[in-house]
Amino acid sequence: MAAIGPSLMCADMGTLRDTVKRLDQAPVDFFHFDIMDGSFVPNFTMGPDMINNLRPHTNKLFDAHLMIEEPERYIDLFADAGCDMISVHAEATIHLQRTLQKIKKQGLKAGVALNPATPLNCLEYVWDTVDYIVVMTVNPGFAGQKFIPMTLKKISMLNELIRESGRNIDIQVDGNISYEIIPEVLERGAEMLVCGTSCLFRKNETLEHATANLQRFLQDFEEKNLANS
Amino acid sequence: MAAIGPSLMCADMGTLRDTVKRLDQAPVDFFHFDIMDGSFVPNFTMGPDMINNLRPHTNKLFDAHLMIEEPERYIDLFADAGCDMISVHAEATIHLQRTLQKIKKQGLKAGVALNPATPLNCLEYVWDTVDYIVVMTVNPGFAGQKFIPMTLKKISMLNELIRESGRNIDIQVDGNISYEIIPEVLERGAEMLVCGTSCLFRKNETLEHATANLQRFLQDFEEKNLANS
Amino acid sequence: MAAIGPSLMCADMGTLRDTVKRLDQAPVDFFHFDIMDGSFVPNFTMGPDMINNLRPHTNKLFDAHLMIEEPERYIDLFADAGCDMISVHAEATIHLQRTLQKIKKQGLKAGVALNPATPLNCLEYVWDTVDYIVVMTVNPGFAGQKFIPMTLKKISMLNELIRESGRNIDIQVDGNISYEIIPEVLERGAEMLVCGTSCLFRKNETLEHATANLQRFLQDFEEKNLANS
Amino acid sequence: MAAIGPSLMCADMGTLRDTVKRLDQAPVDFFHFDIMDGSFVPNFTMGPDMINNLRPHTNKLFDAHLMIEEPERYIDLFADAGCDMISVHAEATIHLQRTLQKIKKQGLKAGVALNPATPLNCLEYVWDTVDYIVVMTVNPGFAGQKFIPMTLKKISMLNELIRESGRNIDIQVDGNISYEIIPEVLERGAEMLVCGTSCLFRKNETLEHATANLQRFLQDFEEKNLANS
Amino acid sequence: MAAIGPSLMCADMGTLRDTVKRLDQAPVDFFHFDIMDGSFVPNFTMGPDMINNLRPHTNKLFDAHLMIEEPERYIDLFADAGCDMISVHAEATIHLQRTLQKIKKQGLKAGVALNPATPLNCLEYVWDTVDYIVVMTVNPGFAGQKFIPMTLKKISMLNELIRESGRNIDIQVDGNISYEIIPEVLERGAEMLVCGTSCLFRKNETLEHATANLQRFLQDFEEKNLANS
Amino acid sequence: MAAIGPSLMCADMGTLRDTVKRLDQAPVDFFHFDIMDGSFVPNFTMGPDMINNLRPHTNKLFDAHLMIEEPERYIDLFADAGCDMISVHAEATIHLQRTLQKIKKQGLKAGVALNPATPLNCLEYVWDTVDYIVVMTVNPGFAGQKFIPMTLKKISMLNELIRESGRNIDIQVDGNISYEIIPEVLERGAEMLVCGTSCLFRKNETLEHATANLQRFLQDFEEKNLANS
Repeated sequence: MAAIGPSLMCADMGTLRDTVKRLDQAPVDFFHFDIMDGSFVPNFTMGPDMINNLRPHTNKLFDAHLMIEEPERYIDLFADAGCDMISVHAEATIHLQRTLQKIKKQGLKAGVALNPATPLNCLEYVWDTVDYIVVMTVNPGFAGQKFIPMTLKKISMLNELIRESGRNIDIQVDGNISYEIIPEVLERGAEMLVCGTSCLFRKNETLEHATANLQRFLQDFEEKNLANS
Repeated sequence: MAAIGPSLMCADMGTLRDTVKRLDQAPVDFFHFDIMDGSFVPNFTMGPDMINNLRPHTNKLFDAHLMIEEPERYIDLFADAGCDMISVHAEATIHLQRTLQKIKKQGLKAGVALNPATPLNCLEYVWDTVDYIVVMTVNPGFAGQKFIPMTLKKISMLNELIRESGRNIDIQVDGNISYEIIPEVLERGAEMLVCGTSCLFRKNETLEHATANLQRFLQDFEEKNLANS
Repeated sequence: MAAIGPSLMCADMGTLRDTVKRLDQAPVDFFHFDIMDGSFVPNFTMGPDMINNLRPHTNKLFDAHLMIEEPERYIDLFADAGCDMISVHAEATIHLQRTLQKIKKQGLKAGVALNPATPLNCLEYVWDTVDYIVVMTVNPGFAGQKFIPMTLKKISMLNELIRESGRNIDIQVDGNISYEIIPEVLERGAEMLVCGTSCLFRKNETLEHATANLQRFLQDFEEKNLANS
Repeated sequence: MAAIGPSLMCADMGTLRDTVKRLDQAPVDFFHFDIMDGSFVPNFTMGPDMINNLRPHTNKLFDAHLMIEEPERYIDLFADAGCDMISVHAEATIHLQRTLQKIKKQGLKAGVALNPATPLNCLEYVWDTVDYIVVMTVNPGFAGQKFIPMTLKKISMLNELIRESGRNIDIQVDGNISYEIIPEVLERGAEMLVCGTSCLFRKNETLEHATANLQRFLQDFEEKNLANS
Repeated sequence: MAAIGPSLMCADMGTLRDTVKRLDQAPVDFFHFDIMDGSFVPNFTMGPDMINNLRPHTNKLFDAHLMIEEPERYIDLFADAGCDMISVHAEATIHLQRTLQKIKKQGLKAGVALNPATPLNCLEYVWDTVDYIVVMTVNPGFAGQKFIPMTLKKISMLNELIRESGRNIDIQVDGNISYEIIPEVLERGAEMLVCGTSCLFRKNETLEHATANLQRFLQDFEEKNLANS
Repeated sequence: MAAIGPSLMCADMGTLRDTVKRLDQAPVDFFHFDIMDGSFVPNFTMGPDMINNLRPHTNKLFDAHLMIEEPERYIDLFADAGCDMISVHAEATIHLQRTLQKIKKQGLKAGVALNPATPLNCLEYVWDTVDYIVVMTVNPGFAGQKFIPMTLKKISMLNELIRESGRNIDIQVDGNISYEIIPEVLERGAEMLVCGTSCLFRKNETLEHATANLQRFLQDFEEKNLANS
């Protein structure tokens, strides 16, 4: 079943510890932290102290998505804060191989994130150094944007490239992942869902309900798929 | 009496709402938010969503300290998030007058922050557009650094310049403001204390105790001063 | 027939209004404005005030070619000045999809311009957000440079990609578009010709003559082509 | 009498040649060209081709005000275009002495422009390499902004510093120079007035009337001053 | 036989003239100079004065590898210093065609260097302007790094692309080129070996021995290959 | 007597070890290394490997002058290479205090270098963290430039400021320090002379002669001064 990763930038910022504790008991697989620098993206969110502060309250995976320029400068900072996975943007560094290598040397999983317009060939020579690819399905920087349909085609092509490579690389999707979109991305090979205001952090629904609903939805989808195959 | 401003970057990041609610009942005067961009300073902390999230829980002043390059780009973002005061670094913009003007047009108080080595003459032609000056007493970017003694002289000279200008401009001090340092900076004219791990967010002491102690200390200092004058 | 677009940067800069009025009566289809920032290209030309100033004097399309870094910052400025079409360089922004979207939200046609060495795969995921592609056939920045032959192959391949996409996307060619070159680019699929000193703004020829000659040339070319097909 | 310098960025952009020809016959002393790069200031205006195009139509001085970063890169470009004077911003270069030297080696007059907040001490070691100082009396980048009162004090202090230096350095003022402001800046030592929409390029008044009025105003001011002294 | 190019950054820096004189008598084909700017790569090495200083002491080819941002700014500097070949990084310039053209106009051979993760399609439209491609087989910036296996696949694909292009373009390999690696890269089409501490500048071996050994090794390899074909 | 510091960038680059060995026996006090990044200054020279290579051949002080942007990134690199003193440019960092502190924490002497136009007030709050000030007497970047007379006044004023501070801070002068200039700078307080082509590395004179002459000149100057006082 696809992994569920709540995007903490979409949660109630003043009470993140409580959110993490509750989600630790819920069927979620990893916590997603968006880090912004006001330069790669026009916003600011959180930093290593928040990650470090929440770390003792769950054993689930911490996944930092660095929406920052020259991320190679900050790998150690986020590794030390307690991340298990770090993704960097292909558009943000001219030393992608070195940066991924640096993440892996820290013992973490290394990801490459791609803006909606970025082509896949930037991955061609890092297949052996990457653990997951983050397909941005909206333009990074703000919550609540519209899903970009062209990214569905990208997920399909990425899935094919990964299969050709014979490697075990996960596809993470990030941006307006709603109930309408989830079947579309799962069918095309997505395995990690970054979940924000579209399916998890919703008004009039508790986190417990929202995660349970989402889990049931993913299970149903998987069963149908197995039945069809 | 000098104003007390807890630096939220030094508080428990996962439970900031609770901290704000408790400090709202305590003798503190403003809340200080440090915003970092990984470029002006080598760290990341928080952004407008955190400010916006905490805004409904207190009526006290929100003071954003933008440790970011070209802060003119983000004045509106932080004004909309609910700030009452915004300070920008003189070293971060070549359009200091325009940036301060932009803050004031939003109806907020405008501040200029100065790195430890930055001379005071950069303020010479903005006295009529500035409401407060932030004298950094450590190098910005991280909590827990050592106080830089040379900044004491800077506070004195700044105080003199302000008096000469005949204007009502506050001196805010930021960086390792401990009980040992407080009398030194108050004597030289500081009126707003950014309070972090050195005097407010301390292990083995509740926020309520810490703020009450600090208030008493400042009152005693003031009384002594009045008695001496 | 291919569209004719006089490049105003090649016209008599001190009398552009007169040029626009005369060309408004001539068989030209759009006006091309080159905007330079001294950073993406090593030159400066004109800005939104010129566009705004000329706007009332013709109803023909105004096409701004932004040879500037981070063009996303200036879409609104040029839209407000009266442009109908704006092209941005793929090399100048890491947020190509967002930038094109921003142009289209203003109700304008959105173009992507490509430096001579830039490969076509940067377009792979913006086919549904782009209206025209500008193939630079010289290196951008100055008038009067030599045509780069390799770009002919690029036009052919781009034409093929567009046909595969099934979309209606125009190919604009820009840079030393002379009478010798025009048949070459038309045969390969170019549909919008940016016309400068090589075929339109020539000494010893009036604008009226030059445009009439060019129109006749294009008509002849088209008739021959139809006859051959 | 103070020199009158029409700011061509405030004139009718489509007919600048005509404007230059008419002003060549009017009592103006120099032509002021504002060059912008979208980075030092958030706008674009004109470039060397415009200067070069207008050069044959008057013998009056051409004064280029480079509102661009690292202006040292473009001194030769603007010298070759036909400028007689070039000013660069102190905030835009870390090699101010080298840049001024470069302008003077081209046989031109070299100026330093200062943003409203910029202190005067950046001039301390270039008195022997500078011919004029441009005091920006609004924030650079756009026409039609409000005069900043603090700059009056700056003009006075600059005037004093120049007198102390014993050198022959002109003070140019630029930004909302209206009839109300002119006496204020002249009294404090300004000798070159950059004239835009506030006093020269005004609706309902011909250029000939506007320049004649301005000349008369300056003459009256001078006579009164002489009478008083 | 493949060309041998000692990387002088790996030699004894204080006695480079002596090294060049001795290698001039040895079976080496070109001298490789790594130029670093502390920005494209996190190190500094040498500059044009060193190249110029060594130039009179050999007639062999001087090959400068510019690991610097915006290399277009420094082509003339390195051409004047006495280089015969200059390679620039595809990741370092948005004007790759212009930069290569500039090198060729100086009468030098023009190369494009590629970081380990950089895909080959950036070469698609410069085949007619490039003389050699530098495949970085380690991340640039420091001596003594580990060979990156994925680059072998890149050499093969590059070789195929060059054959398809029908042009005479050399493949240079740079980074930990040891005796174990040499057969691997030669089989895949490499023709120029940048030789550093892994095979040439080794403790306990004279330069004369090291080059003779390497020459013999390459001859043996070639003979075997001829025998097999 | 003033300290003599040969600028190795002016020596024979291919035989620096020999130069260092010979100068180690001559009356020179420190070795000066100019490090350039092609960005702060338009040139490249040498890096840490050269310093490290020469380190074992003399016990005299190694003084690195970092003409690079954001020098804080490279303090450790140059400290590890064997420097005893490092100077950084005030214009190159917005964290001057932090950068100096970083140098001193490595146990080295910390210097601030100033471009010819840079005013002295940038030193106002680092007197307690700085060991020497480098007054650039030419614009940095190339050998063989003309001495800038205005810098004499700067040396005098700096000398006065240092005396006022009551601290033991040396004045180093760098740029075209010839026999004509030396008395001028010594009279004004310079104590460390960076010696290049103007007085030390001269054609038709051995290093041994040149240094002996210079030593004698400085001794004579000192004796005359003592006699006069």
